[in-house]
Amino acid sequence: MSSEDSWLHTDIGGSTADSITLRGRDLARDLMGKVSFSELAFLLVVRRLPTAGELGLLDAVLVSLTDHGLTPTVLAARLTHTGAPESLQGAIAAGLLGGGSVYLGPTEDTARFLSDVLAGVPGAPPSDGALEEAASAAVRARIAAGERVPGLGHPIHKVVDPRVPRLYAIAEEGGLLGPHLCLLRAVAEAHAAQTGRRLPVNGAGAAGAALADLGVPPSLARGFALLARTAGLVAHLGEEMEHPLGPRLYAEIDDRVRRAAPPASAD
Amino acid sequence: MSSEDSWLHTDIGGSTADSITLRGRDLARDLMGKVSFSELAFLLVVRRLPTAGELGLLDAVLVSLTDHGLTPTVLAARLTHTGAPESLQGAIAAGLLGGGSVYLGPTEDTARFLSDVLAGVPGAPPSDGALEEAASAAVRARIAAGERVPGLGHPIHKVVDPRVPRLYAIAEEGGLLGPHLCLLRAVAEAHAAQTGRRLPVNGAGAAGAALADLGVPPSLARGFALLARTAGLVAHLGEEMEHPLGPRLYAEIDDRVRRAAPPASAD
Amino acid sequence: MSSEDSWLHTDIGGSTADSITLRGRDLARDLMGKVSFSELAFLLVVRRLPTAGELGLLDAVLVSLTDHGLTPTVLAARLTHTGAPESLQGAIAAGLLGGGSVYLGPTEDTARFLSDVLAGVPGAPPSDGALEEAASAAVRARIAAGERVPGLGHPIHKVVDPRVPRLYAIAEEGGLLGPHLCLLRAVAEAHAAQTGRRLPVNGAGAAGAALADLGVPPSLARGFALLARTAGLVAHLGEEMEHPLGPRLYAEIDDRVRRAAPPASAD
Amino acid sequence: MSSEDSWLHTDIGGSTADSITLRGRDLARDLMGKVSFSELAFLLVVRRLPTAGELGLLDAVLVSLTDHGLTPTVLAARLTHTGAPESLQGAIAAGLLGGGSVYLGPTEDTARFLSDVLAGVPGAPPSDGALEEAASAAVRARIAAGERVPGLGHPIHKVVDPRVPRLYAIAEEGGLLGPHLCLLRAVAEAHAAQTGRRLPVNGAGAAGAALADLGVPPSLARGFALLARTAGLVAHLGEEMEHPLGPRLYAEIDDRVRRAAPPASAD
Repeated sequence: MSSEDSWLHTDIGGSTADSITLRGRDLARDLMGKVSFSELAFLLVVRRLPTAGELGLLDAVLVSLTDHGLTPTVLAARLTHTGAPESLQGAIAAGLLGGGSVYLGPTEDTARFLSDVLAGVPGAPPSDGALEEAASAAVRARIAAGERVPGLGHPIHKVVDPRVPRLYAIAEEGGLLGPHLCLLRAVAEAHAAQTGRRLPVNGAGAAGAALADLGVPPSLARGFALLARTAGLVAHLGEEMEHPLGPRLYAEIDDRVRRAAPPASAD
Repeated sequence: MSSEDSWLHTDIGGSTADSITLRGRDLARDLMGKVSFSELAFLLVVRRLPTAGELGLLDAVLVSLTDHGLTPTVLAARLTHTGAPESLQGAIAAGLLGGGSVYLGPTEDTARFLSDVLAGVPGAPPSDGALEEAASAAVRARIAAGERVPGLGHPIHKVVDPRVPRLYAIAEEGGLLGPHLCLLRAVAEAHAAQTGRRLPVNGAGAAGAALADLGVPPSLARGFALLARTAGLVAHLGEEMEHPLGPRLYAEIDDRVRRAAPPASAD
Repeated sequence: MSSEDSWLHTDIGGSTADSITLRGRDLARDLMGKVSFSELAFLLVVRRLPTAGELGLLDAVLVSLTDHGLTPTVLAARLTHTGAPESLQGAIAAGLLGGGSVYLGPTEDTARFLSDVLAGVPGAPPSDGALEEAASAAVRARIAAGERVPGLGHPIHKVVDPRVPRLYAIAEEGGLLGPHLCLLRAVAEAHAAQTGRRLPVNGAGAAGAALADLGVPPSLARGFALLARTAGLVAHLGEEMEHPLGPRLYAEIDDRVRRAAPPASAD
Repeated sequence: MSSEDSWLHTDIGGSTADSITLRGRDLARDLMGKVSFSELAFLLVVRRLPTAGELGLLDAVLVSLTDHGLTPTVLAARLTHTGAPESLQGAIAAGLLGGGSVYLGPTEDTARFLSDVLAGVPGAPPSDGALEEAASAAVRARIAAGERVPGLGHPIHKVVDPRVPRLYAIAEEGGLLGPHLCLLRAVAEAHAAQTGRRLPVNGAGAAGAALADLGVPPSLARGFALLARTAGLVAHLGEEMEHPLGPRLYAEIDDRVRRAAPPASAD
């Protein structure tokens, strides 16, 4: 390599004729059979192996985000498969493309929000009082600006999002109730106190807080949500191959549109 | 639900106001904290939980497929990030879209090939002799048709693909050396005997055979490869955010193109 | 440029500090204000400007393929916009990803089929008799192999696809009824004669034949269909921004799924 | 249609057994052979046919945005083709996915910026003096906020972007020098006056201004840029099929990475 090629490299992985290396570890000797897929994902992003507790929390986060039934992203993937059944990667890509600001964004938004607030909180770790104070100020600022508070509220799980208490319990058992998860709980309390309306912490928000506590940069929190979602999409496309929804859905929509009045003859 | 809506459902997952269910199991109570992400992916596709041995083999397969450095798919994802850094899902989707017939296809092709051959082999499980005979005939047919034999040969790992003996060892330890993996080994022997040239079983092929032995339909083998690749892409995009390759690569290419003779003035 | 860089170039376009060149023509001086977008698309692919007749036929093909209402690809794009409204390119990409073997493939399949048959027909141009003979043999071979004949039949336009006679008339007026379009008509006749069942030439097939007659390689016929479809998708996403269908469709589906019996408690 | 289905329709297009309708016009009778593809794209989005002058300006905008050589988006599309040559739609989708905030965003950003400024300018059309005043205030606000002024400056075309004077001339000839284009010119003057440094109006910005003057909503300006880019991608993928760049580029990068020092043995 000429010295000017120093920019053209990756610390993630590489191979020679008889070995493959990921993050400095030999793939066949040190990783296959020794680490789980989730451990490897953590290693690649965080650059060290997780502890057993961290791995448990990471798996719980991924499990919580994998699938939510016939969501818009799943429907987009299935309808894409209808037109291009030969391209599984195209249908999965279509499904992931809906993982933007509305559906997977809240995971990232919550991680960023909490991380930004924590940057201004003294103490390592910060005291409960410091977190409460910071939460109160951050919620007040959001409300004053007319902005939603990330991580709170869910259209279906209006009282409790069942994933959230479970994720907090898993974090607590592992001694991993870190500042992001604690701050998020304080944010929910501050929001209830200031508005008189209690919104539950939502699953996406708790997942974002947990990922941040695990050392995942907020800018990659959405990446773990997309990873989880990919597994759900594979399963949905397998079901679509056996029991196709896409053509039935299209036929029904086409029929309903057709039975409606025809478009006006001019516009 | 009206009876005519019976087509509009999924067996994969769903939710009510206070619970989320995946494959008939309560997400918060039965899955989070109890199964790993790989276990859940297996459950969603194969419709039962894996045994410990099966999980070990699945994790080894996923780990073996996660990353191979600066491949075309990773480069495509990084160059997409250069133009649309605000859309992580877009860059990951671009990376997955290169997972077609050339790069991830061999995993699926091998699974399909072995599965098709096995459909004509008597015995459950088939004897070693029956597998050798079937392998020999299948290789002969492929060679006669001028077609490549799926699962053999690698551009870099010309003697041994280091992932392959490891994957076979993990399968063997788990008592999971099933008919697809055994047949693939017999195929490599038959190919060497018939051509006088020994090609190693490649990692993509062994992964496809192992997934088929685990009960993953061949049509979804590529899906597990895409799942694994997603974790690699998340890590590469994290690195790209810190040390951008894309703009440097573009600048270099642009400069080399520009220094070349300009395009002919007419065509 | 070192001589070893000769592979790293494109004949399509390039730029210097004060000019941009496409296919050897100065963009600002020779193309902008002088050629239409369709002309430029033709120039970039076919490497010469179209005649007025060719341009008329190309425009008619593109116009015929632009939109067909709420198709699966449009629905996928709209549902992707629901989740990622900030990424117009993601929604359009999702819409195009369904342009595979089922929806846009017939354009390419027909172009390839006709092109393959023509490769074996003597005469330049071939006589009507030679085309009829070739059509008859090709249809017979397809039927014998149990394969569909590309370019024939339509699920909605069962008697006549209204785009087809119009496209043939436009080609005829322009003196551009070339061998692919003529062969396709002979194929429809041969099919009716051999099966006793008359299937109309479909719009996708006629478009593929016209593109092949215009000099577009069959492998890029689908590309023009995707180009046309992109304009339709932009319009649908504009409508989606004003009158969102995606969230309503999801809400309805979610409601219908929820009102159905819950998933069985085990599987 | 039940009245509750009134949301499930599109004004863009539809079909019956013997006709296809787009924006209330019969596709075969009123559009094919009568309007160009660009005219149809305008009709679908703006809901009326363009005048001859408007069509000329629209075509010039599309022509100006179609291709810029081996850009990151073209490279991503070509590298995707390397892995999935069977899926043209996948390679095109990958190319479009890089059309985000960095590469195609400026077209939209400029349209939005100008549109927002114009919303506060009196007069229909506003006087030159009013535009200059508004431009001056808007530039001052941007500079004070430390933000870039959309539509100005180009990494290669540092003095004049050759597309810009041509686009203004075409608009002027057509009597279509509307408030967005005029304001953009005033913005460039105000920026030079306030900073003492003259930045040229760039092609993306002028395109965005022209589209806005044509009645395209700023939120869809990027859509026209993506449409134009699709034609360029089709041409590049055609060239890639004949003279593959992707595998050569990958081989070179792989070789340069390999010849570099191996990754550190631990991290």
